[in-house]
This record gives sequence, C-alpha cells and structure tokens, in this order.
Amino acid sequence: MSSSSVNLKAVPGRLTSSYSEVQASRLDVSLPLPSVLKSSFSVVDGPKSSAAGNPEEIAKLFPNLFGQPSAVLNPGGSSVLSKDTSLKIGVVLSGGQAPGGHNVISGIFDYLQHRTSGSTVYGFKGGPAGIMKGKYVELSAEFVYPYRNQGGFDMIASGRDKIETPEQFKQAEETAKTLDLDGLVVIGGDDSNTNACLLAEHFRGKNIKTLVIGCPKTIDGDLKSKEVPVSFGFDTACKLYSEMIGNVMTDARSTGKYYHFVRLMGRAASHITLECALETHPNITIIGEEVAAKKQTLKSVTDYITDIICKRSELGFNYGVILIPEGLIDFIPEVQQLIAELNEILAHDVVDEAGVWKKKLQSQSHELFEFLPPTIQEQLLLERDPHGNVQVAKIETEKMLLQMVETELDKRKQEGKYKRDFLGKTHFFGYEGRCGLPTNFDANYCYALGFGAGALLHSGKTGLISSVGNLAAPVEQWTVGGTALTSLMDVERRHGKFKPVIKKAMVELEGAPFKKFASFRDEWALKNRYVNPGPIQFLGPAANAINNTLLLELGAQA
Amino acid sequence: MSSSSVNLKAVPGRLTSSYSEVQASRLDVSLPLPSVLKSSFSVVDGPKSSAAGNPEEIAKLFPNLFGQPSAVLNPGGSSVLSKDTSLKIGVVLSGGQAPGGHNVISGIFDYLQHRTSGSTVYGFKGGPAGIMKGKYVELSAEFVYPYRNQGGFDMIASGRDKIETPEQFKQAEETAKTLDLDGLVVIGGDDSNTNACLLAEHFRGKNIKTLVIGCPKTIDGDLKSKEVPVSFGFDTACKLYSEMIGNVMTDARSTGKYYHFVRLMGRAASHITLECALETHPNITIIGEEVAAKKQTLKSVTDYITDIICKRSELGFNYGVILIPEGLIDFIPEVQQLIAELNEILAHDVVDEAGVWKKKLQSQSHELFEFLPPTIQEQLLLERDPHGNVQVAKIETEKMLLQMVETELDKRKQEGKYKRDFLGKTHFFGYEGRCGLPTNFDANYCYALGFGAGALLHSGKTGLISSVGNLAAPVEQWTVGGTALTSLMDVERRHGKFKPVIKKAMVELEGAPFKKFASFRDEWALKNRYVNPGPIQFLGPAANAINNTLLLELGAQA
Repeated sequence: MSSSSVNLKAVPGRLTSSYSEVQASRLDVSLPLPSVLKSSFSVVDGPKSSAAGNPEEIAKLFPNLFGQPSAVLNPGGSSVLSKDTSLKIGVVLSGGQAPGGHNVISGIFDYLQHRTSGSTVYGFKGGPAGIMKGKYVELSAEFVYPYRNQGGFDMIASGRDKIETPEQFKQAEETAKTLDLDGLVVIGGDDSNTNACLLAEHFRGKNIKTLVIGCPKTIDGDLKSKEVPVSFGFDTACKLYSEMIGNVMTDARSTGKYYHFVRLMGRAASHITLECALETHPNITIIGEEVAAKKQTLKSVTDYITDIICKRSELGFNYGVILIPEGLIDFIPEVQQLIAELNEILAHDVVDEAGVWKKKLQSQSHELFEFLPPTIQEQLLLERDPHGNVQVAKIETEKMLLQMVETELDKRKQEGKYKRDFLGKTHFFGYEGRCGLPTNFDANYCYALGFGAGALLHSGKTGLISSVGNLAAPVEQWTVGGTALTSLMDVERRHGKFKPVIKKAMVELEGAPFKKFASFRDEWALKNRYVNPGPIQFLGPAANAINNTLLLELGAQA
Repeated sequence: MSSSSVNLKAVPGRLTSSYSEVQASRLDVSLPLPSVLKSSFSVVDGPKSSAAGNPEEIAKLFPNLFGQPSAVLNPGGSSVLSKDTSLKIGVVLSGGQAPGGHNVISGIFDYLQHRTSGSTVYGFKGGPAGIMKGKYVELSAEFVYPYRNQGGFDMIASGRDKIETPEQFKQAEETAKTLDLDGLVVIGGDDSNTNACLLAEHFRGKNIKTLVIGCPKTIDGDLKSKEVPVSFGFDTACKLYSEMIGNVMTDARSTGKYYHFVRLMGRAASHITLECALETHPNITIIGEEVAAKKQTLKSVTDYITDIICKRSELGFNYGVILIPEGLIDFIPEVQQLIAELNEILAHDVVDEAGVWKKKLQSQSHELFEFLPPTIQEQLLLERDPHGNVQVAKIETEKMLLQMVETELDKRKQEGKYKRDFLGKTHFFGYEGRCGLPTNFDANYCYALGFGAGALLHSGKTGLISSVGNLAAPVEQWTVGGTALTSLMDVERRHGKFKPVIKKAMVELEGAPFKKFASFRDEWALKNRYVNPGPIQFLGPAANAINNTLLLELGAQA
C-alpha cells in the first residue's frame, strides 16, 4: 500500500445508543428489494446508444465508452456472475447532502455480502478528495449499521472537489492501483456523474481494471432522464418542505392576516417548488422556467403577486402563501444584465454616495436598480465574492419580493385600489430538508440503486449510471439496470474547448407536473385549497406515498 | 335573539376530500379517554384555595370566587350530573395558535353529546371579539368532523382582543344572555385565562348563570402550575422544531463547515429552547433565564459562544448548532437600558449622520451600541412601532449573535488564537410549529381537557381551569379536574392599580429540566452527541413519546 493512502479507523461516528426512538426504529427495517435482485439474474445489453446532443463531439471525448448500450437485469437466465468472485469496490459521496445516500452505500455493501465472497468496500472520505488523497475507511457490517435508513452523508462525508486536471486523474489512478480497485461507485449530481464518466473513460483508456458506476443524487431533482426517473433525496426533501409549508398554510388561514413568502432550496431548477405546490396547493407559486419562457421582469412577477393579493382581499382573504424557487433571479434576463453591468462597474469605478456612478448603467438596468428595495441595492453593492462579483445566491429573494409587493400595494392603496393593511412574513426552507431521515420511498429506492450498482460492477460494466425504473409499481416490480452516462451527455463550449456535460433537467412547461399545476393554480389562488401533508410517516397508510412529480411523469395518477 | 348576534352558517371551511393521506388518517382515530371519564364520576372539591401571591388583593379583585377549591373527578360515586340536562355552551379560542385547539373543542362537543341531551355548543368566531360582537357558529357533528386531530385554529378562528372595559363586559353579558349560555370555555394563555376568571367573577357577581372554564393553551409552555402540568401545543411545537434542528445537525456534521444559529419561537420564556436542547443535544444553548440570573451581557454571551467554537476548532470540529430563545434580548439588562434610552432620545432628538446624538447615551449604553453590528444598529434606529418605540421583537437575534461572533473570531484570528475560516447560517423556526397536526400526546391531552371542561360546566363549576394530571402514566390513568384560576394569580401594579395576573412560568434554574441540561451541556459542547428526533409519528413505538420537560417535571425518567 502506498504511503499516501490513509486507511482511517473503522469506527462509526455515530452511537446508536443515543439515537431517538424514531432513528432507532428505522435501523432494523428490512427493506424490500426488486424481485429481480432477489434471485439469479442475467445482465442484458440494449441497443447501441448515442448522446443527448452533439454525438460526434461526445464520441471524440469518450472514444472508449461512446455508444455503449444500457444494461438491464433480467430475472433467471444463465447468470455468469460467480458467487466466488471477490471484489474490491470503492464508494464516494460527492456534493451536497441528499436523504438516502447512506442507503446506497449499504445497498452496495449488502449486494457484495450476498452475491460475492470476501469482497471489500472502501469508503472514500470527504468526497472525491478522498480518492485523490487515498483517504478511506474499510466498511464492515458494524461500521455500516448505525447509518442504515438514516439521513446525512456523515458515514464517509462528502466534498465538492472535482477530479479534473491530469495530475488529479493520476492521483485517482494511483489510489485505484494501490487499492487494487475493481470498481468505484460515484454517488453525486450531474457534474459528479460527468466526472464519473470521465474517470471510467480514463481507466478504460489506460487499461486499468477499475470500473466506474454513477448513482443519481440530488434533492434538486434536476438529474433525470427517461431511464433515470428521479434523483434520490428529492422525495424526502419535498415532503419535509411540504410539511412546513402545510403548517404555515394552516397558520395563515387560522390567523387570517399574514402573507407568507416561502423561498425553497433547489438551485436553478424549480422542481422542488413545483412539487411542493402540487403537495400543498399554495395561493401563488413562481416557477423560474416559466418566468424565463415568458421573459417576465421583476416588475411583472411583482404585479402578478400583487394582483392576486388584491383580488383575494376583495374576496375577504387577507392572508396567503407564496412559494418562490431559490433560483428565481437566475431566470430573469434583466436581472442578469444588471448584475453583469454592476460587476463591470464595481471592478473599475468607485461607487459614490451621491449615485453619480449609476449613470454608467444602461437605462433599463438603471430603471431596474431604482426599482429594487434599498436593502437589496445595498446587498448588490456590498456582498461580493472573492473575485469581486455580486453574490446572487446571497440575495434573499423572498424578502426582496415581499418588499417590492409592499411598495406596489402602497401605491395601489394611494390610488384607492387596495384598502387593507398588508403583513408579510418570510421563510427560507433549505438545510433542514437535505438531511432528514429518508422516506420509505427514498430508503427503498437508494437501497435498490446501491444493490444495482453492485450488480453492474459485478458484471463488469463501467460508465453507466445505476437506474431503477417502474417506480410507480410496488418495489418488487421495479426494474434494475444501468444507463450509459455518455447517452445523457451534450457538450458545452468553455475556454474554446468542448466540455462534456449532463444537461440539468429543468421543469418542462409541457410536462405533466407543470400542466397539472397550471390547470389548478387559478383555483388555488382565489379559493383556499390548502393541503397539509403532515409529517413524513414510516408506518401506516400514508407511509409509502410517492411524490406527485414522479408519479405524473411516469403517467400514473397523483 | 338580539339583532347584534350573527349566527354564521355552519359550513366547515375545510373539505376533507382534499385532505392529505396523513390528515385523513387522523380523522377517525378513536382517542383514548382517562378511565374516570368513561363511566360515572362524582366531582369532589378539595380544600379552600389561596393565591400565588398577594392573596388579600386577589380576594378583593375576586370577591365571589377567591378561595374556591379545586375540583377533581372521582370514578363512581353518586353522580348528581343528570344525562337529561340540556346545556348551552360557548367556546372561544384566544391568542396564538397551538396544535390541539380543535381537539379541545371536539372534546367539549363529545362530552355534551355523550353525557347530556339536546345540548348546544356555540363557537365564537375570531376570538373574544366574537363574544363581544355576538359572532358565532353552532357546532354540529358534521361541522366539527373535518377538524378532529388537525392542527390550526381555523374551525372558529382565534383573535387577540381582550374583554377589558366595562362596555366590553357589558357586551359579553349581552351575548351570554341572548344565547342563554350556561357556560363558556376560554381556550387561551395566561392573559386569556386571567380574562376568563374576570368574566366568571363578573357573571357570578351579577347573578348571571353563565359559568366560565379556562383551558391552558400555548406552545411557549409558560402557563403551568402543579395541577396544570403543561399547556397544550408545547409538545407538538417542540417536536416539530426538534425535527428541523435534528436535520440541521445531521447536515452540519455531514458538511463539516457550518455553524447554524437557530432562533426558536417561545416569547419571553426559554422552555421551547430548553426542551429542544434536551431532545437534540446541540453544542450550545442559550437559556434566557440563566442569562438574566447571571446578569450576563451581550459581550459575555458572545464570548461564551466564541470560546466553544474555538475549543471545537482545536478538536477538529469546525461546525456546530446553537439554539437561541426568541426572548433572549429581553433578559439582558444592558440591552433593556439601551433601548429605554434610545426610545427617549428618538422621541425628542434628530439622529444625525455624524453620530453626535450618541453623546446623549450613557457610557455603558454607548459602548453597547458601538459593540452591535451595523445592521442591528440600523434596525434599532429605523424599525419603530406606531408609538415610536424600538421594535425589540423584530430584531433577528440569531443574525445579531452570528455577526458578533464573527467579529470576535476575526479579532482572535488576528491575535493568532483562532486559525480557521468561520461560516455561519441562521434560521428562525416559528410559524411552522404553531399549526402542525397535534402529536398523539397533544391530541389525547386536548381531548381530555375538553371533556373535562364539559364535565366541570355540567357540574356547575366556574372560575376553574381544566386540569388533567398524572400525564406520565397511560391515558387511562390520567386524572381530571379543575384548578381555581384565582389560586394561580398574583397582582401587578399598573397605572396605580392592582391588576390580577397569572404569572408566566419561566424556566426554573433549580428545576429538573434545566438541571439535566446543565449537567450535559459541556459534553454536548465539545463532543457531538446530536440526536435526530425525526418526524412526528402517529403509529409505531415512537408515536406516544412525551416531551422531556414534562416527564422530568413529573419526576419521571426522560
């Protein structure tokens, strides 16, 4: 073993003796498996694959992997997978937490325990950096146990480093050789899975035996395709946020005097916001992708909200709940333009108190800047990242919209068009949703993803993402397989070079979830159709419910 | 019926057809009752009571009620309560929402259905204002049904008006006479129960037959006594907040780089913060009552937090969770002093940009003002209530403390005493906890409180607060009775007059909950003993757990 490798002591960071009753009750739950994973199976290849876009470029970037078929596990058949095989498998968590990550790892671990003999699983610590630095822990049944069906990524911790430079690929190669790795499972989002595929390509190109399989992780729900119907963690996160939103709705209705502006985590895409809307039926929901498609301005979004508030007031309702996606600002072209101009001006000029600097803004940007509430203007000018750029992510969009709505209502009040006092409250639901105990769905789904990843590695596959399908059916009927990562890719031009990317799946305005939302939102706006989803249940009739987005996309009733 | 009375149409505002699965699953749950309520019982008076303080003054304020005994329901015996009685009972919700209010109402309703015949329950709409304006709805089984075991107060809505002036008492009297009310149940906090007792006294003094019974409501947990072990809603709210805190802890541990500053609702008292600490084991918990007892300053609180962050950093932990009670600022004498001086100065002087006005501050207040982060200084100067006073409640204490800790860490870094980068996140958990689906405990407790209130009215009692005891035992063994409201009272001198008040129950530094917390906090600070309580469960082993505070105060193990 190379001296750079650090095998950390296999002591779990958690003590089950201090677990809450609910945590403890989840530890020994025996998870259902898709029936194909319960007895012998064969791994069958599909047709040759292509790419999501620019197949010629993807072919050039992945000469050894491009075109490889997706694989599916079929029950029975003459399995070539020997139980006598002994595999050395690494696993790594990459990027932000999502409920269920621990179950993917226990799925991989259990697969190897049941289907191979004498296999070893190494958990790389702290994300991809753990691969590069050779920092890992060897998993044992005792080590894995406290994390079964538990939230968080702390079993081996995650990280945001990427394996990008030639030196970093070399380091990963070293670790793979040192540990004699047969395979590596990368649990991550779009970037991490692109990275996994580059690593698979690298290993195959250099004739290194290490296979690489990805797993679709992100609460944001923006990593999905036909064969990968949903990323894990989305279900739990949406249900946690919806519990809180439902409570805030009940509060709004009971109190009768507050408008709650709720911003929801989820990065650029509005999947979480849309799902929470489908679960709870808020009065107003802003979907970033629609704002972009309709080329809306901040003013038009503000007017849309204000109009509904005024109409509700006429109906006697002076309260309500408004959902706002974290990524809203990124969808408004005029805001992007303003920020670009600000970055330029602030890099070269002094911002004088008297505001002479504003003359450097183009007229549309100047107008927008003046339209913004003073606190937001201040944030734009003062909060800068280390490169001197405006930190868009730090802008509290819910507070910004609340202030703009207040200003607009004041105006209408003076014009006699609105007569009430307006009281707003703001919320941001984010971190509390990334690490909850996984729902039954996420627990089962992740366990199957991990089991499937083990099967793919066992059968010699590389450059695939573990894919589990038919999710609207009972777990026993779920399908298990792997999708060629190159088939999910397109290229982007960066610094004059083509770079492979798995395109983020955004909310489709023609998709079933948005269409269902769009068909109901006017009713939800003026009538109060609030739903309180309540806390996530692990037992009882509601425990196995699946999120609306997934069901609708699968063509099932939601 | 007087023309001022408005019997609103008995149509529930909720449609069970649009309920979530969890909401629907709660509707038909058959709640266990204390066994004394399941068959015949007699109502037995205890000894003559006194007051919590200044009994002579309380006796003067309540000449008709002072000294009356508490009552307890005993099983069997020769009950004088006739099933043929037909009663007209009003019920009102007063003040902020607390999970379980709907169950109190259904308990009253069900008692009268089971134990009397032809009785009527009127729900006064929108709080005490509904009594004064004679706005009510007549409850029916169909009307009550959608609210069974559901959160919120929207069945009849609540309000914050008080019945205070002679005219208002007259209005309440009118309504009582118009509706021929035999009794009224006031569901509220300390102020509302004081008000209930004044109303009981008024009715008795004027020989009006309407009896008045109170019920202990508030998530804040600050309305309790020996016979009223807990206010309803506290259990659910603490469990909801603890779910979120537990998730944030798992996130902190997984990410390994954030300190989360979590402010918790709960008004002046720190019961909620203390209970959440006992449930989740955070690294740092500030208890307002302790800060006051130790006469701590903002600087010493900041140093306490910063010291632990530095020690944790030396141990390799650069993350953590810090709980802060909503009412913290009210406990710091120097802050109170500063605010008093600011109110005075701002009422008379101009705040000049150059800061000459600050010379009017006393030196200690001046020093404190300069110690505050600029955003908080600004809030103190700009956010004023309609009377021109600083709005202390609007100060985001969690952000203030975070900024002060950042400043202190920067200082220590320059001195070489701290070496890491510090990243903080802030949260406020409040509204999402007031209206959740009540836990099994709160659902059962409230139902028993309501049933008990019905029994007290049926037996002719007035001026009592419904009290259910022996809560650590199974529901069947709970005791049911009523405690003389005057026995909970003391007087306060306001505008030269004695006013009766039920003293808010603050966290007792010699009480079992605080002592348990104090004995563990050093361990929690430096070792990570996080507990993730998980979502509230309605089925399974964890579903019937009772909050730690109550168990410890009852002398039971928690």
